[in-house]
Amino acid sequence: MSTFAAVDVIRTKRDGGRLSDEQIAWVVDAYTHGAVAEEQMSALAMAIFLRGMDAGEISRWTGAMIDSGERLSLEVDRPTVDKHSTGGVGDKITLPLAPLVAACGAAVPQLSGRGLGHTGGTLDKLESIPGWRAELSTAEIMKQLNEVGAVICAATEGLAPADRKLYALRDVTSTVESIPLIASSIMSKKIAEGSAGLVLDVKTGSGAFMKTREQARELARTLVEIGTAHGVATTALLTDMGTPLGNAVGNAVEVAESVEVLKGGGPADVVELTVALAREMLALAGISVDPAEVLASGRAYETWCRMISAQGGDPEAALPKPKHVHVVSAERDGILSTVDAYGVGVAAWRLGAGRARRGDPVQYAAGILCLAKPGAHVTAGQPLLELHTDTPDAVPSALASLDGALTISDTFPTSTSGIVLETIKP
Amino acid sequence: MSTFAAVDVIRTKRDGGRLSDEQIAWVVDAYTHGAVAEEQMSALAMAIFLRGMDAGEISRWTGAMIDSGERLSLEVDRPTVDKHSTGGVGDKITLPLAPLVAACGAAVPQLSGRGLGHTGGTLDKLESIPGWRAELSTAEIMKQLNEVGAVICAATEGLAPADRKLYALRDVTSTVESIPLIASSIMSKKIAEGSAGLVLDVKTGSGAFMKTREQARELARTLVEIGTAHGVATTALLTDMGTPLGNAVGNAVEVAESVEVLKGGGPADVVELTVALAREMLALAGISVDPAEVLASGRAYETWCRMISAQGGDPEAALPKPKHVHVVSAERDGILSTVDAYGVGVAAWRLGAGRARRGDPVQYAAGILCLAKPGAHVTAGQPLLELHTDTPDAVPSALASLDGALTISDTFPTSTSGIVLETIKP
Repeated sequence: MSTFAAVDVIRTKRDGGRLSDEQIAWVVDAYTHGAVAEEQMSALAMAIFLRGMDAGEISRWTGAMIDSGERLSLEVDRPTVDKHSTGGVGDKITLPLAPLVAACGAAVPQLSGRGLGHTGGTLDKLESIPGWRAELSTAEIMKQLNEVGAVICAATEGLAPADRKLYALRDVTSTVESIPLIASSIMSKKIAEGSAGLVLDVKTGSGAFMKTREQARELARTLVEIGTAHGVATTALLTDMGTPLGNAVGNAVEVAESVEVLKGGGPADVVELTVALAREMLALAGISVDPAEVLASGRAYETWCRMISAQGGDPEAALPKPKHVHVVSAERDGILSTVDAYGVGVAAWRLGAGRARRGDPVQYAAGILCLAKPGAHVTAGQPLLELHTDTPDAVPSALASLDGALTISDTFPTSTSGIVLETIKP
Repeated sequence: MSTFAAVDVIRTKRDGGRLSDEQIAWVVDAYTHGAVAEEQMSALAMAIFLRGMDAGEISRWTGAMIDSGERLSLEVDRPTVDKHSTGGVGDKITLPLAPLVAACGAAVPQLSGRGLGHTGGTLDKLESIPGWRAELSTAEIMKQLNEVGAVICAATEGLAPADRKLYALRDVTSTVESIPLIASSIMSKKIAEGSAGLVLDVKTGSGAFMKTREQARELARTLVEIGTAHGVATTALLTDMGTPLGNAVGNAVEVAESVEVLKGGGPADVVELTVALAREMLALAGISVDPAEVLASGRAYETWCRMISAQGGDPEAALPKPKHVHVVSAERDGILSTVDAYGVGVAAWRLGAGRARRGDPVQYAAGILCLAKPGAHVTAGQPLLELHTDTPDAVPSALASLDGALTISDTFPTSTSGIVLETIKP
């Protein structure tokens, strides 16, 4: 019986038809409980990949994945607002952003994942802080949200289990890069977290999953449509990911850079994006506070320290140092015109900052420091990158992925309009 | 390693690319041995379904499926030639055809399957003969081919195991109706049988899998291309399957009708198609004998008796009779304009002639006798169909599938040009 129904659902999408609300609810539920087999969902995922889904189907698919698990009910006095990034190289923004927005008066429940591939994971970065733990119970999350206003922790198993199962399947069946499937995956987890507002940082450029601006814009619009359809106030920023964010790419190095920002310093691009996202989050939360002032005041750093301590971490502890540092220097005088995000991201991953398979360990001290940003005058022999690793054997393959990632020319690179390219609202 | 390679193969086809010979050889072999998972092959099958394969890819895919098992080496003095039908309602042609062509001097190794769905299986039909057995060893097949000239038996497990695995997967993932996948499935089994010549009966119309003539023609051309590329002399006939072949649809009733044809009688359309296919097979075998004369001479019937006896069957034994017969009569006077093959096929299947799942038993006595053919004058109350079953409870659902299948009008149906619509050669 279930097999006949599954083949009908697959056939409908295969032939370019629209899945009904009932078909979507049934197939996602049956897949979660094993009545629709992995090979059937895999065929359906490929049919969705190639045939697409319309806005209504995507919204229902997201709803069905939310319904596969629990939807958190956040019992907090303050307005709740969350942020999600589609992933970039050096994208540590969650680390300064969550305490900043909490210090401004909102509650930020940031349930995160681990990194896979060339973009790092927020939890991997924070785990480089001695003592810090990612796994919290729902009760601990609520307590911390009320007492500190910000929590960054692992998503609980009960949120959108259908998405967890489907994501693992897509990974081995080449059905990852589909906007309906990406959008419903992101939003099912985020909506299940129960936040009233959500700001999406949709990245575009070499270091992002969406390589073109058109794809990124389509994904951003789809995400905003889903959030709105499910009653979550949603805004998306389209941001540039052609070059790494800030100077640090890795785990401990990104924590250190985030602390600099929280103390009022840090790279201009990281500060710019942190403040821009905070403004959007505060607007959704209905809070009229200037996040730039709060950042300068040191109150965001205080919230950071309380947030880290609440999860067992020591915010003052020394961070892990790499056993080996390899320096890449400028080959000639000129203007550094590109530092390619993808090349740097893959290099950091190969140095040990990321994992090739789920469950692999990461090196907390591994990563890359960019010592110069695009547009800088450089002279021959000047250090441009520091490669950090505990396993020097990894250096040659990291260097191979940096081949062509740095270019020095005689003219300034075309200036861009800043990191935030577009703002997309319902 | 294998996972990475599998996702690359899937991605290539997903994005509309061409699979290389190496990719095809690797993925089919790895799937056969379990290194490519069912869900990966399922995604690839859907990508092939929606993106297609060119002639070269289809030929290589077929070759890889042949290479997954053994290829029989037929040690027979006579020229070998085989026939395959894409399946139709009342399609018992293999039964008179194999002994007829053998009686003309060729050797016919007809390795067949069981029925699933609304078209019956050749082995199910023959198993209604008391004592007859379908399972032969390779040695028994060779002995019978040499001594009788014709063998109809179950395909051995060693032929194209990749196809057996893939066919079961396609069945549950809605990836059946793809010309590249259908064509490579048919031809991998047929080429592995080792016959030097092959005639394909590609059916079109309501009772066929290919509903339109364009689809059937494309399938026929693809089959002929694959056979030719693999050194098998191949011809295809496009034949009409709008109305059941002959008068009998079922198991024992089709055997009885085949025996009538072998004795020189039987319905005109069954005789016409049997002789037409025999002519093509003999042409490929290089034998200049008129099959119509051999049929009339009784020598084909003698070969039939020896072929059945060689497999333990008693060609003179009484065939099973149904426990229950239900008659459908003409509602008014007029000209019988349609007897729809699909409606009759589904009705026979529901009466018990076919199986819903692999491994289910079939009723040998179940089926339908068509007492009048399209174009006949009929009078109100005249019996048109006899429904045979051992399970009278099945009659209402069989009648439901016959709703609209019989139409009586005041004018003659548009005449067609006979059963054979087109002949397709390399």
